[in-house]
Amino acid sequence: MEVKEALGQLDLLQKKLYAYNAASSSLYLDSVTVAPKDTAEGRGVALGILAGESQKLLTDEKTGELLSFLQEHRGELSEIERREVEELQRSYRQLVQIPADEYMEYAMLTNEASDVWHKAKETSDFELFRPVLERLVAFNRKFAGYYDKEKKPYDALLNEYERGTDMEFLDAFFGEVREKLVPLIEKIGQAEQIDDSFLHRHYPVESQRRFSDYLMEVMGLDRGHCTIGETEHPFTLEFNNQDVRITTNYKEDSVADSMYSVIHEGGHAKYELGIRDEFQYTVLAGGVSMGVHESQSRFYENIIGRSRAFVEAIFPKMQEFFPEQLGDVTAEQMYRAVNKVQPSLIRTESDELTYSLHVMIRYEIEKQLIGGTLEVKDVPKVWNRLYKEYLGVDVPDDKHGCLQDSHWSGGSFGYFPSYALGSAYGAQMLQNMEKDIDVWGPVSKGDLSVVSGWLKDKVHQYGSFLEPADVVKNACGTFDPSVYTDYLTKKYTELYRL
Amino acid sequence: MEVKEALGQLDLLQKKLYAYNAASSSLYLDSVTVAPKDTAEGRGVALGILAGESQKLLTDEKTGELLSFLQEHRGELSEIERREVEELQRSYRQLVQIPADEYMEYAMLTNEASDVWHKAKETSDFELFRPVLERLVAFNRKFAGYYDKEKKPYDALLNEYERGTDMEFLDAFFGEVREKLVPLIEKIGQAEQIDDSFLHRHYPVESQRRFSDYLMEVMGLDRGHCTIGETEHPFTLEFNNQDVRITTNYKEDSVADSMYSVIHEGGHAKYELGIRDEFQYTVLAGGVSMGVHESQSRFYENIIGRSRAFVEAIFPKMQEFFPEQLGDVTAEQMYRAVNKVQPSLIRTESDELTYSLHVMIRYEIEKQLIGGTLEVKDVPKVWNRLYKEYLGVDVPDDKHGCLQDSHWSGGSFGYFPSYALGSAYGAQMLQNMEKDIDVWGPVSKGDLSVVSGWLKDKVHQYGSFLEPADVVKNACGTFDPSVYTDYLTKKYTELYRL
Repeated sequence: MEVKEALGQLDLLQKKLYAYNAASSSLYLDSVTVAPKDTAEGRGVALGILAGESQKLLTDEKTGELLSFLQEHRGELSEIERREVEELQRSYRQLVQIPADEYMEYAMLTNEASDVWHKAKETSDFELFRPVLERLVAFNRKFAGYYDKEKKPYDALLNEYERGTDMEFLDAFFGEVREKLVPLIEKIGQAEQIDDSFLHRHYPVESQRRFSDYLMEVMGLDRGHCTIGETEHPFTLEFNNQDVRITTNYKEDSVADSMYSVIHEGGHAKYELGIRDEFQYTVLAGGVSMGVHESQSRFYENIIGRSRAFVEAIFPKMQEFFPEQLGDVTAEQMYRAVNKVQPSLIRTESDELTYSLHVMIRYEIEKQLIGGTLEVKDVPKVWNRLYKEYLGVDVPDDKHGCLQDSHWSGGSFGYFPSYALGSAYGAQMLQNMEKDIDVWGPVSKGDLSVVSGWLKDKVHQYGSFLEPADVVKNACGTFDPSVYTDYLTKKYTELYRL
Repeated sequence: MEVKEALGQLDLLQKKLYAYNAASSSLYLDSVTVAPKDTAEGRGVALGILAGESQKLLTDEKTGELLSFLQEHRGELSEIERREVEELQRSYRQLVQIPADEYMEYAMLTNEASDVWHKAKETSDFELFRPVLERLVAFNRKFAGYYDKEKKPYDALLNEYERGTDMEFLDAFFGEVREKLVPLIEKIGQAEQIDDSFLHRHYPVESQRRFSDYLMEVMGLDRGHCTIGETEHPFTLEFNNQDVRITTNYKEDSVADSMYSVIHEGGHAKYELGIRDEFQYTVLAGGVSMGVHESQSRFYENIIGRSRAFVEAIFPKMQEFFPEQLGDVTAEQMYRAVNKVQPSLIRTESDELTYSLHVMIRYEIEKQLIGGTLEVKDVPKVWNRLYKEYLGVDVPDDKHGCLQDSHWSGGSFGYFPSYALGSAYGAQMLQNMEKDIDVWGPVSKGDLSVVSGWLKDKVHQYGSFLEPADVVKNACGTFDPSVYTDYLTKKYTELYRL
């Protein structure tokens, strides 16, 4: 075989993987937006087949031979082609461990699980979800062994979402979080509380939709390449760097909910839309890890979106969208309201400060579930106990407890910690950004282009060309969780006049 | 190989074809509903790959061997399995003729063409669409040779949409249509005209949406398995017999437009939803031909939906949805208004009687384009001349002329005649239905279940298990276009008191 011919095959292989991925994404997007409700079965058949074909392609002996051949001729490849081969070989070696039938069965299971979870959550019926969750946990424990049999199962899963992290690393990280933030939250509990009642006046969905359009404009999201939809749980879905979809969920009695969902998902979208064209339709397209992805979404949401400069910049416009609701409110009141600290039940509605504790609870439970020291049937009990212990709140039912998140029903175990890690990365990015550029001058004028430019330069453009650790190093320097806890301590000490 | 093993492979083969089809459908549905506008390129890459994979699978030597093996052992197969093998062999023999690269290129072209056509139509710019249309025509002429090199190109294409028809058959059919209907339309032009001005009062979209929900209920369409969306051009898209989508387009100044779109697309949906479970995920799922499909949609739309019994039955409810607009209107006025004959420019807005002439014009043009006796650049000229000749109307621009339909941009040449054929089939179905059951008693009470039951029994349930000609025979008896022209003559003679 000639190298040129092999590169042609490499290109086609990656385009096929892209196509299967785009197809599954499209079917998924449909299922959570417009599909009629009793249609999971037929979609599951299609998704199962597509997942199977994608896996068969990646685990085909011919693919292995092609990758070995290109690896042997790596001297003749461009840097990008070398990275493509490297990434594909990693997937190949991992996937050849997973039997094709188990892979297909799992794809069908996650499709079914999503349906069951929706029903279970609606009726707060954990028993309905339990058998499915048991199967999901069993699959993930087994798959962890396929991913890396040298690692403990949960470490192997963590590695899937944030290559290089493990329980030791995360135990230390969450240790710092617990040590610094728990006393801070306690002090805040004793301080004078912030009034955010005006956030809960009546905000009609139609006005909120127009407000979302404005926020997307402020973020510089080109609507020709990025739409906004409405789903129960907001998410971002990328087809390629020209086609990204975000969704939000409007609550008429809480304007900040959708506002910060839009900014959060918009952050994910900025990442995907900022990836270089040359990586498109290859395995180097797409954000590099969940942690880095969350660093971007949470950077826009919290570090920028909940900054005094940003809130002051957009507030006059916000008053135009909601004149009756916000006529008697000042920008400073708004800034304080969107930063109100309130230990609560729902992760996605929690504030910037207590958020990491919500994540820590899920981390503890997943660690034990996958580690085999906790049975699925006991999840609600442990969940409720930890919420009481870390956040001091009583969980009234599983709908507001362990059934609130979609992650497990989608088969994601080991994903949650990346939310907290992403926040920590973000704090370090801010520190470095402030050394390089004037961050707050432009932001205080509602201009995010300078911030976005820095992030595109340091993070977005690379897609998966650099390793996660290298992106983090590039944008953050050496990982140091105390930068994160210091950032929070400074911000909330000032806010609550501690 | 054992027969049992071969049947397992047959099952998997068909499930894969189903999955590729579902994936492409999902991407298509997305593209015409929610996708951001500048995203055709990436979708085209995915659709091209999927079409290529589907074609590769069907034309794989192993597929050929499998089908031959099963054909040899046909004595050991069930009747359904035999039909699956037969259908697959027909596709196999046809597709092995088409080079894989041409097939992929064509899939990408139709994706691009859809975009170009939209822009060309918007700006009434035929020159923009011309080069794409030229490529589409060239591809179709070439593909016609692959489909059946014994046939004339257009006959080969016609055979794709309605197996068994050809130009000789259609020339005779349209001859009858022309002979009987042109004088009828002329007489109507000289009669007292119907007042339908109240159909063009202001009908808010929101009320029309609720009216659509009601119409779907009347048609017995289960919303758990069938959604309604909104697109520029209404269509029906089926994933399987549990998952069908219809779309409509609301015009605030014309209530009958969406009303009859919903009933028309609802008719297509009834067909797909009524197919037997045992055919799902096989090549026997799905309606058998375009003509038979149109017979169902047009049966519900015109023969039922524009009958006096149906209009009288739903009119009181219609007045509830539109009290201000229809308060001063009677059911009889409504019946006459929705049947007003008006030679016009736009096919999809034309009445039941002149509709076939719109189709005939497209038939004449396609026949010549594919036959090579008409150049693409001359399409607008010929189009405008024929509209003047058959319908007596002047075409002001190509937006209201040859750019109005999406079919050619989607690569469909030979599809149009099936609309007229479907109408003719429908008239014969009515004749037979009236012999079997009381049609109008239940319909006059707004109960379509008896009609739907007859159609399900004679047509829907079979999917593609029977040949198109056998379905037609089953439901219509011997094809006789004069039943159609008689039906129209009787209806419109009474309506216009001729």
